[in-house]
Amino acid sequence: MLKIACAQINTTVGDLEGNSQKILAAVSAAAKLKVDAVVFPELAVCGYPPEDLLLKPHFIQSNLKALDALAKKVHGLSTIVGFVDSDGSGKIYNAAAHIAKGKVQDIYHKQELPNYGVFDEKRYFTPGRSDGLFQISGVKVGVNICEDIWVDGAVYSRQAKAGAKVLINISSSPYEEGKLQRRQELLMRRAKECKTTLLYVNAVGGQDELVFDGGSMAILPDGKILGRAKQFAEDLLVVDLSKPAGKIPEAMDATEEVYQALVLGVRDYVNKNGFSKVALGLSGGIDSSLLAVIAVDALGKDNVVGISMPSQFNSKATRADAAAVAKNLNIEFLEIPIKRIYAHYLAALEPWFATTAPNSAEENLQARLRGDILMAFSNKFGWLVLTTGNKSEMAVGYCTLYGDMSGGFAPLKDIFKTKVYELARWRNSQTRTPPVPKSVLLRSPSAELRPDQTDEENLGPYEDLDQVLSQYIEGHRAPSAIAGPKLSLKYVQKTVQLVDRNEYKRRQAPPGIKITPRAFGKDWRLPLTNKYNE
Amino acid sequence: MLKIACAQINTTVGDLEGNSQKILAAVSAAAKLKVDAVVFPELAVCGYPPEDLLLKPHFIQSNLKALDALAKKVHGLSTIVGFVDSDGSGKIYNAAAHIAKGKVQDIYHKQELPNYGVFDEKRYFTPGRSDGLFQISGVKVGVNICEDIWVDGAVYSRQAKAGAKVLINISSSPYEEGKLQRRQELLMRRAKECKTTLLYVNAVGGQDELVFDGGSMAILPDGKILGRAKQFAEDLLVVDLSKPAGKIPEAMDATEEVYQALVLGVRDYVNKNGFSKVALGLSGGIDSSLLAVIAVDALGKDNVVGISMPSQFNSKATRADAAAVAKNLNIEFLEIPIKRIYAHYLAALEPWFATTAPNSAEENLQARLRGDILMAFSNKFGWLVLTTGNKSEMAVGYCTLYGDMSGGFAPLKDIFKTKVYELARWRNSQTRTPPVPKSVLLRSPSAELRPDQTDEENLGPYEDLDQVLSQYIEGHRAPSAIAGPKLSLKYVQKTVQLVDRNEYKRRQAPPGIKITPRAFGKDWRLPLTNKYNE
Repeated sequence: MLKIACAQINTTVGDLEGNSQKILAAVSAAAKLKVDAVVFPELAVCGYPPEDLLLKPHFIQSNLKALDALAKKVHGLSTIVGFVDSDGSGKIYNAAAHIAKGKVQDIYHKQELPNYGVFDEKRYFTPGRSDGLFQISGVKVGVNICEDIWVDGAVYSRQAKAGAKVLINISSSPYEEGKLQRRQELLMRRAKECKTTLLYVNAVGGQDELVFDGGSMAILPDGKILGRAKQFAEDLLVVDLSKPAGKIPEAMDATEEVYQALVLGVRDYVNKNGFSKVALGLSGGIDSSLLAVIAVDALGKDNVVGISMPSQFNSKATRADAAAVAKNLNIEFLEIPIKRIYAHYLAALEPWFATTAPNSAEENLQARLRGDILMAFSNKFGWLVLTTGNKSEMAVGYCTLYGDMSGGFAPLKDIFKTKVYELARWRNSQTRTPPVPKSVLLRSPSAELRPDQTDEENLGPYEDLDQVLSQYIEGHRAPSAIAGPKLSLKYVQKTVQLVDRNEYKRRQAPPGIKITPRAFGKDWRLPLTNKYNE
Repeated sequence: MLKIACAQINTTVGDLEGNSQKILAAVSAAAKLKVDAVVFPELAVCGYPPEDLLLKPHFIQSNLKALDALAKKVHGLSTIVGFVDSDGSGKIYNAAAHIAKGKVQDIYHKQELPNYGVFDEKRYFTPGRSDGLFQISGVKVGVNICEDIWVDGAVYSRQAKAGAKVLINISSSPYEEGKLQRRQELLMRRAKECKTTLLYVNAVGGQDELVFDGGSMAILPDGKILGRAKQFAEDLLVVDLSKPAGKIPEAMDATEEVYQALVLGVRDYVNKNGFSKVALGLSGGIDSSLLAVIAVDALGKDNVVGISMPSQFNSKATRADAAAVAKNLNIEFLEIPIKRIYAHYLAALEPWFATTAPNSAEENLQARLRGDILMAFSNKFGWLVLTTGNKSEMAVGYCTLYGDMSGGFAPLKDIFKTKVYELARWRNSQTRTPPVPKSVLLRSPSAELRPDQTDEENLGPYEDLDQVLSQYIEGHRAPSAIAGPKLSLKYVQKTVQLVDRNEYKRRQAPPGIKITPRAFGKDWRLPLTNKYNE
């Protein structure tokens, strides 16, 4: 029986040269391990998802040339690799090539094209018709791609019926909470259903709002796991399909999984976009404290700068906490008071604002001038600004557009406030010196844009708020279906209205990392102009 | 033969109540004109495009209830109206109902679902299978929806073969330059091909980045136009299909069409989102001057406020021109010098910036604090801020994120700079007093963020720039294919690189109005992290 290497690599969209080098390096490493075949993720040649690059005919050509160049260099073993195929007359396919003996031996075209959630594959690809049955070292193998294994009775089952001894699924499957578990259950079911060994090779790495979490695996016909690759890291998993299942490493627990997704997402967004250093506003609150820790875990302490920008409304305690976080992490820390700049804005506006009551105009100004200062450092020194807002804020618009929403990447954008606390506590438990000060964990959250303000007096307790938001956003449930003994209809309706009314802020928000089943990203496409209010 | 009213109405997405009232009003008006039938646009009940509202099961239910309520009130004549149908088990359809005698008589489900450009219909809808053949006053009629008429040999041709005497296509077809002409040619071809009379009923109005331009029409079997409704306005076009073609109003010329699309897009975005008044920064440059004129044409002079925010880098001439535009339009005009606020920012940053050379940090600060001031007025008085940037700037990133890019709506976002001039000249020719001062049309454009700066010394002549941009963005052409005797490869590559590198700015830009075949909106989905550079 076959010995196969699953090359769980971290590609970059559009980096045909870099991805090819990674593929060749893994082919070499696999060859040394005397395997029959090495398998790469979906669209490994061009990176996933290439989105509208796929509409450029020259991009398709460049990717075909890259595949050809690869093929010429692969001799000793069979290589399965994802690329974009073309019929030459405008139709393109999400494809897998079987390369051996210096050329492309077989090609399979993905049949099931996801066009929901974050996926737009029907925008680009034509569904395939070939059977995906290849011979590797004399063994009949069925190759299929990502969604092909999720749809009941799809090509995988025809491949099994046609006598495939091994099914190989190449994927670029984005992470969301609990996804590894769901994939594992599906694959076990498929292996038993088809009575074949199943190889699942997933991508790893961050690409804009998506994180691919790896966790490639091999499942025996009895549903046992023969091997599983690392989560959130590159890996070369070698499985000898003639061996019985042994002990495999335990999967990360739910909280660690989310934390590692954030770390990888930040690292890859920053580095793949050519940045090395980031800055963020450190307020002494829980969001910016957690984010600073994640940034240091992702990029190292020398690449993170914390900037505190206190006003007259910031308490001594939060100012001290901002400094404490920076000290705990040993990162560069700047303090720039904003009181005087703020006063000059108010003076300039005085002729028109004098007779008005203070409102969000004055509050947002503070947030905006802080955003200006962060962006000035970004422009001056080439640092990427990380935005600190969480999903609860982003949902109800408890954040200032062009203010605290300013920045290139918003790692916590899909993390509810209650989850922010959970992650901070978990991270504190992982090192002898907890990086997030206890006082930060205990203090009532406040935007500190006016005296004695707290979030929860405006929004209700975060536990209630997050429950409503999760049901409304992730579940698309009606307010009347969300309301219940603990959540009054009035409260639910007020909250839901905030979500609807603040769509315009989210439309201009930086991208963040998808963690939940429905993030405010490509899987959230609500109209701005919208009078439906349920 | 039949007498039919084409009810070209302006619906609002999600406004089931408001849309139903509009429909009923048009039914009443049509009934008085003794027509056999009245026809409404695609998805008229819920508005188009509802986007992810379609993922909410309760939204589908609300729309079905609205259709039922409508049906009960329609008696005297046949009514064809677009709505979302459901099979009750999760599948939904883009549908047309034939209502008569107080109930729904027939239903047709759209078969060809567009999933390219700005369209995501395969994300939501299942393609239909019914024949769309209805009886109206004893005449066999074939009803189909939008894309159904664009695809060669689709359902329309089967309807004609099955003996339909009239084909009715209900559409919500978004405007882009020259679209009316293309629709007209298609419809003439179809009418001749099918040897039937063809009724095309389009929506009108702005919905976020889309403008539906109306121009509903009736075409006789010989390809002649029997009647055409207004462009960019609601209309009730009544056609007596037994009459020969007479004289029809001439269509707008290319420039007027674009101008009217901008006016309608601004009016509807502002009003449908509950605003009445807008503010914009008036710099004395061509973009803000043209936009002020458009805003006044859309909303009236009392609903537009021009704000000039001069710095030490603004010339007397541009300051005077800003005031002149406001005076020509008779709008409220505020002048708020930014020199002192800017100086205080620089003072606060001095400890870190003192030893650095001035760069984009200082330039962008000026743009950002202007954005802050505009947003302060927005927050204080509830005015929507219009963003003045054009497509050329947005393409190459010659604009400041959270600065001049701040605002709720960017009407000129899809208008190249050369087109901005064309529109200003055209509009100046339309009234005895030209609203845009001649000096604005003649001066070299400059961002005025440092002394003696001009756009074209940075970007090349706008005529060249816009040519490169149009080919790269709208044509998805490779730099090597764009370069030629007039456009050096080096210049093209430099320009294209700017486009690629500034994707992050566009991701956080306000929505604008789609005018070209490919706008920076739903039809532009490029990855941020992207190493492909051709």
